[in-house]
Amino acid sequence: MGGQDATAGAKARPPVSPLAPAAGFPALPPIAGVRFAAAEAGVRYRGRLDVMLAAIEPGASIAGVFTRSSTRSAPVRWCEAALAALAPGSDGGFAILVNSGNSNAFTGGAGETAVQATVAATAAALGIPERQVFVASTGVIGEPLPAERIVAVLGRLAADLDPGAADKAARAIMTTDTFPKGSVARVDLAGVPVTIAGFAKGSGMIAPDMATMLVYLFSDAAVAPGLLQAMVARASDATFNCITVDGDTSTSDTLMMAATGRAAMAPIADASDPRAAGFESALAGVMRDLAHQVVRDGEGATKFVEVAVTGAASDAEARKVALSIANSPLVKTALAGEDPNWGRIVMAVGKSGAEADRDRLTIRLGDILVAERGWVSPGYAEADGAAYMKRQELVIGVDLGIGDGRATVWTCDLTHRYIEINADYRS
Amino acid sequence: MGGQDATAGAKARPPVSPLAPAAGFPALPPIAGVRFAAAEAGVRYRGRLDVMLAAIEPGASIAGVFTRSSTRSAPVRWCEAALAALAPGSDGGFAILVNSGNSNAFTGGAGETAVQATVAATAAALGIPERQVFVASTGVIGEPLPAERIVAVLGRLAADLDPGAADKAARAIMTTDTFPKGSVARVDLAGVPVTIAGFAKGSGMIAPDMATMLVYLFSDAAVAPGLLQAMVARASDATFNCITVDGDTSTSDTLMMAATGRAAMAPIADASDPRAAGFESALAGVMRDLAHQVVRDGEGATKFVEVAVTGAASDAEARKVALSIANSPLVKTALAGEDPNWGRIVMAVGKSGAEADRDRLTIRLGDILVAERGWVSPGYAEADGAAYMKRQELVIGVDLGIGDGRATVWTCDLTHRYIEINADYRS
Repeated sequence: MGGQDATAGAKARPPVSPLAPAAGFPALPPIAGVRFAAAEAGVRYRGRLDVMLAAIEPGASIAGVFTRSSTRSAPVRWCEAALAALAPGSDGGFAILVNSGNSNAFTGGAGETAVQATVAATAAALGIPERQVFVASTGVIGEPLPAERIVAVLGRLAADLDPGAADKAARAIMTTDTFPKGSVARVDLAGVPVTIAGFAKGSGMIAPDMATMLVYLFSDAAVAPGLLQAMVARASDATFNCITVDGDTSTSDTLMMAATGRAAMAPIADASDPRAAGFESALAGVMRDLAHQVVRDGEGATKFVEVAVTGAASDAEARKVALSIANSPLVKTALAGEDPNWGRIVMAVGKSGAEADRDRLTIRLGDILVAERGWVSPGYAEADGAAYMKRQELVIGVDLGIGDGRATVWTCDLTHRYIEINADYRS
Repeated sequence: MGGQDATAGAKARPPVSPLAPAAGFPALPPIAGVRFAAAEAGVRYRGRLDVMLAAIEPGASIAGVFTRSSTRSAPVRWCEAALAALAPGSDGGFAILVNSGNSNAFTGGAGETAVQATVAATAAALGIPERQVFVASTGVIGEPLPAERIVAVLGRLAADLDPGAADKAARAIMTTDTFPKGSVARVDLAGVPVTIAGFAKGSGMIAPDMATMLVYLFSDAAVAPGLLQAMVARASDATFNCITVDGDTSTSDTLMMAATGRAAMAPIADASDPRAAGFESALAGVMRDLAHQVVRDGEGATKFVEVAVTGAASDAEARKVALSIANSPLVKTALAGEDPNWGRIVMAVGKSGAEADRDRLTIRLGDILVAERGWVSPGYAEADGAAYMKRQELVIGVDLGIGDGRATVWTCDLTHRYIEINADYRS
């Protein structure tokens, strides 16, 4: 067997990230038409919740976005195919089955066999077609998923389904996360109150077990499937695709959203519906909150950092610059060292490949103007920059002075703890 | 002033990298037509060589390649322009003036003024046109270069010029390097022996002062300027552009090559000359040796790692995969931890954006077949992989099983020491 990171998780849980939300995990209200259950299946370790089932009643719309990795896992491939094959109006309800402890990635043909076994058992337990069962796995890679252990608890999971068990579900999908991640929003759609609630797991893009980012969102709103898919893709691009811990990408990243349509409203059929914008905005807010929580749980993170780039030739160019800054080991170690080292930001702008002109570049740390027109700003005092860098939450502002393109991404610093987590612990 | 990394270098020299060549700095033979000098100008610190001058006598060809950063430094901009403006047959000889301690990068208009001052003084001291003087600066950024300190030693430098002083020149351009880097090759061109000698500085792509990679190469061969430029560009692409420590790119990277034509040979005028291939191959060998030495001096490096990718759809795709592996923090921390974590290699292949098929992927650690056809190899024993990873020099082999594209890049591991160097030390 591959035996990747075989001891990870056998250790005591690491301390909760210093950047975790002070308020803790939010109370996730029930969403009409969705029930959850979680169980200890012993996929890898005993004595912890490691499987969650979400059952979505008939009448819902479902949407999903997945990692673009060319070595993506068997569960991701299944979900992509199932979602694409979903006939308009196909119904009977949906199920989402997720296990932690084993990612079922790079397991050859055995990976597909394991997916088939868990999907078939879930479909049988809930009485729905197999193609309406979505699965995800997160944990060690290269080891066969012990599907039989998951199948063995499915009857119990189906019996335990409960609209109020979202918090248990959120905990069951954690791997190296130091805290569970949840978010909720309520929005008024032309007089009808609807709720969006979601949870996520992820400790950066990556983790000792290649820990994946998984995100599940639920709403009682009524939204046509095609429109829901478009909204989810767009909001994901502006939130989860704008965070980075180390630039590494999991083979298993999965985001799914179900809208049950149980609210007392006519369905939102297309983007021209005046309610569409309000719903999408609230959805994006929940996704942004969850995405930020993933960064706040970034391995070894001690700083939460927003990189806001303006004045680029296009939004795409701005994003290129923002990600170049956010992924630069040199910038990230300066952040860890509380060093207002704006020269490293200049370097990262320069290497991004985006159009830039040294003599039009403006750099800010929070509200502090640091550099402008190709040199340090006359009013900048190093002591001000140094004082700012001691904060736990930082904003790096870069204006390229060329056009109207803008992008914002979020990241964390690169610390000794990151190296410890990823290099030092090994059987 | 920017005051970037103001204390860097004020500390005791760090210990020599464990990966430094056992044989130490090679004896660099004199190259007919080239003389060197070095001096203590006190650009930033006292008591160390920090300026070097190379004077190349009339009749030479000169070529150069430079960083593609859009925020590249004033000296780089000068060199690009001077090289482009060089009239065919322009002569009088060339000069190369390099200082360490200050990179003259992101210094606005003051940067160009400082370049102008040092170029003018060099041209005057050697009696050559200003546009035949090439300059480079490496060290802190965002602070004005004290050009007057360099100008003050130019007379002495010109008087000291000596064909045997290449080793002093190599030391004068060091910043955070833990050892000087030199290489020499002798090649027979249709019965005429010629020599290629060079030196470099660089401690990874980056360093506390954004330490630049600088490379200077000299030969007594006679090669037409256009052909020399093509050879240098091609060899640079296969050597210096195939190394990475952390994916960061300096604003000042510079490589220059002078061929003095003093050997008893007719000039090599174009690529069809049968001697061209032999010369280019020897040149590439010297450049590869120097490039490897830069990786061996990578900040905090304890492993020298070759990533060899074959079977890609094209060479460009192979290079994309190789760099994705070599730049992945997850792979690099596994290397530091001596962890045969092939799952992270699968992840890096997947995120590269290159065409790949999980079920055709083969991964080797040295000669050990680790994974094939989408899963761990049946004959692979984790203990073998773990034993291999304890070596100081490692080869990661990836075959994509798709086409004939291939690429090899070199990198090092990511260790606590990297974080220490880049985050912990700060005034």
